[in-house]
Amino acid sequence: MTTLSTPGPTLGVVGGGQLGRMLAEAASPLGVDVVVLDPTPDCPASTPARDQVVAEFDDVDAIRDLADRSDTLTFEIELADQDALERIERDTGVPCHPKPATLDLIHDKLVQKRALDDAGIPVPPFREVESPADVADALDDLGSPAMLKARTGGYDGRGNVPVDEDTDHAAALAEVGGEGNAMVESFVDYERELSVIGVKGDGELAAFPVGENVHREEILRETVVPARADTFVLEESREVAFDVLDRMDGRGVYGIELFEHEDGSVSVNEIAPRPHNSGHWTIEGAHVSQFEQHVRAVLGWPLGNTELRCPTAMANLLGDGDTTRDAEIGLLETVLDAPDAHLHWYGKRDTRPLRKMGHVTCIRTEDEPREELLERARTLRDGIDFA
Amino acid sequence: MTTLSTPGPTLGVVGGGQLGRMLAEAASPLGVDVVVLDPTPDCPASTPARDQVVAEFDDVDAIRDLADRSDTLTFEIELADQDALERIERDTGVPCHPKPATLDLIHDKLVQKRALDDAGIPVPPFREVESPADVADALDDLGSPAMLKARTGGYDGRGNVPVDEDTDHAAALAEVGGEGNAMVESFVDYERELSVIGVKGDGELAAFPVGENVHREEILRETVVPARADTFVLEESREVAFDVLDRMDGRGVYGIELFEHEDGSVSVNEIAPRPHNSGHWTIEGAHVSQFEQHVRAVLGWPLGNTELRCPTAMANLLGDGDTTRDAEIGLLETVLDAPDAHLHWYGKRDTRPLRKMGHVTCIRTEDEPREELLERARTLRDGIDFA
Repeated sequence: MTTLSTPGPTLGVVGGGQLGRMLAEAASPLGVDVVVLDPTPDCPASTPARDQVVAEFDDVDAIRDLADRSDTLTFEIELADQDALERIERDTGVPCHPKPATLDLIHDKLVQKRALDDAGIPVPPFREVESPADVADALDDLGSPAMLKARTGGYDGRGNVPVDEDTDHAAALAEVGGEGNAMVESFVDYERELSVIGVKGDGELAAFPVGENVHREEILRETVVPARADTFVLEESREVAFDVLDRMDGRGVYGIELFEHEDGSVSVNEIAPRPHNSGHWTIEGAHVSQFEQHVRAVLGWPLGNTELRCPTAMANLLGDGDTTRDAEIGLLETVLDAPDAHLHWYGKRDTRPLRKMGHVTCIRTEDEPREELLERARTLRDGIDFA
Repeated sequence: MTTLSTPGPTLGVVGGGQLGRMLAEAASPLGVDVVVLDPTPDCPASTPARDQVVAEFDDVDAIRDLADRSDTLTFEIELADQDALERIERDTGVPCHPKPATLDLIHDKLVQKRALDDAGIPVPPFREVESPADVADALDDLGSPAMLKARTGGYDGRGNVPVDEDTDHAAALAEVGGEGNAMVESFVDYERELSVIGVKGDGELAAFPVGENVHREEILRETVVPARADTFVLEESREVAFDVLDRMDGRGVYGIELFEHEDGSVSVNEIAPRPHNSGHWTIEGAHVSQFEQHVRAVLGWPLGNTELRCPTAMANLLGDGDTTRDAEIGLLETVLDAPDAHLHWYGKRDTRPLRKMGHVTCIRTEDEPREELLERARTLRDGIDFA
């Protein structure tokens, strides 16, 4: 029996960016308090959260304080420290979901790909590389060009370098963090980038409808749902997502990025053990958002309805220009006036080039084709002006 | 041009109950900070709000502190002090919406009815009563039985006493607060109770679809939208609502309660110059909720789309039993498992008989008739157990 008292359960969240902010926004109607831990004072999540512990992500004493105030711990950033979380889980008895060991699996792309491959989950061909000679061998085996990837520390495209026979392999290796931190992955000539937001609850699994993602400079720009792919591709994507969830340890939301290949097969690109940018559309487009699902899942509450309410498009508001400066956007009317659009502004103090500052969601009107829906979200986003 | 910077605009809200809580939940995605003023430490709104000023509603110094931290002031409780707000508005230049004078109009039901009547807005026949003899005269004129009402201080049915020729009029007068605080209103034999949530923006007016309300013991139990009334009644209700908005001074959301009479005409029962319990359905059932509309309106931003997303029913979770005790509800599964239901728990520390502790919203599945939709919300609500 699930009982809710007041004060309700407290969720301690390592990380206080936009994901923590939207988690706290989703937790409040359920009577769930959120306390976040983040090194940046007045981090985005600090406003809707009950409180913020200002500390580094690996500050064991601070995480212990967070645990002392929490019924369950979770994280919204992969920089969370698995060793610290495991120790604190053991010492305090406050559970952490997903399990901290998941971070180990996620941090290292090579380890992640091997684990998925071992579990029979399709991934693009890959191999570990230690030296320039290994890179050359990998190109022979996997085909050229291929993608040299940092095993750890890559994020939003940082740490990915395309390589072919003519590349300076030593320089490329250095660029992704040097020997011991590299893998080569077959260059995926994909048809579409897809993602499934999966949820692992207490003895139950769920998945949202498949989204279609548009990246540029390896940063997510837009998502449209349902993805414009054949039904069998959507079904296969969800099946793969459920296989991934089976392999994961601990409850919570997982963002599962996939490639759709020309023949309609799919392979897993990357997994994030947390709510995911490509799932922001769920706030307006699904019955229960990925953020509420994460709250429910980590607390061991029943999961909510992951069905679509209506086709939806999301466009990220990214910092423009080429300097760091105070965050300020103008021409908000373009979004506020639009009858089927919703603004989400993350409350970040300053903007940097390509920094995720907010997003705009459009829900479908009448029988609008998804092309137009996506275009509408883009146009609204582009109409907003960074002052 | 509407520009949003970070930190965004701050809304200072007098009152920190569930309305303030849902205001703060709606403000966060817009990048708007909320600071509430409420005498109860850890009031319901304190969790999602940035901060709480712990002070009485008429504490001028504290309201001045609130104004100093705010770009705009508003209130979510009618106990807000109009004199204090007017003085502070004048002294600090921080605007308050709705205008504090609106509170004067609302506080005194006689003044409210007269103002509406003067503006040509239909209200049930009423008259001021000073003495037991006046009550007898009023019964002669307006018909018997009639409703003796406290002019001020009544809330959720407190302060209403039915009277007829056999009633002890002196005792009834004493019960509603004595001479100088009473009016008699014609007993309305209504067909239905309706309400319209209206929004007064910067040079624009808007109204949500008409809701149908079910009261028991003069406390709202359920709302279903759209109301099950004839189209011409719905249209007339909205017209009356727009007339009311015209008469109101200052931007914001207004809850307008109406009676539908047997002949299909409507009259205004009461106005609340704030988001209203009968508008909670808008969170899931409309494109933009009454809370987001209030934030937009008081800041002078463009209003959002008030159209229905789908038919919706809301059932209040009221404290049961007959004592004040720690708030705790069980059997949450009944709501969390239901595919088209949403829980809102206000985070109040203790429960009292009939206290508003939370609400459950159900959105329509397929072609479900509104009777069944309403019944589903009731059944889910009744399945929740106050421990």
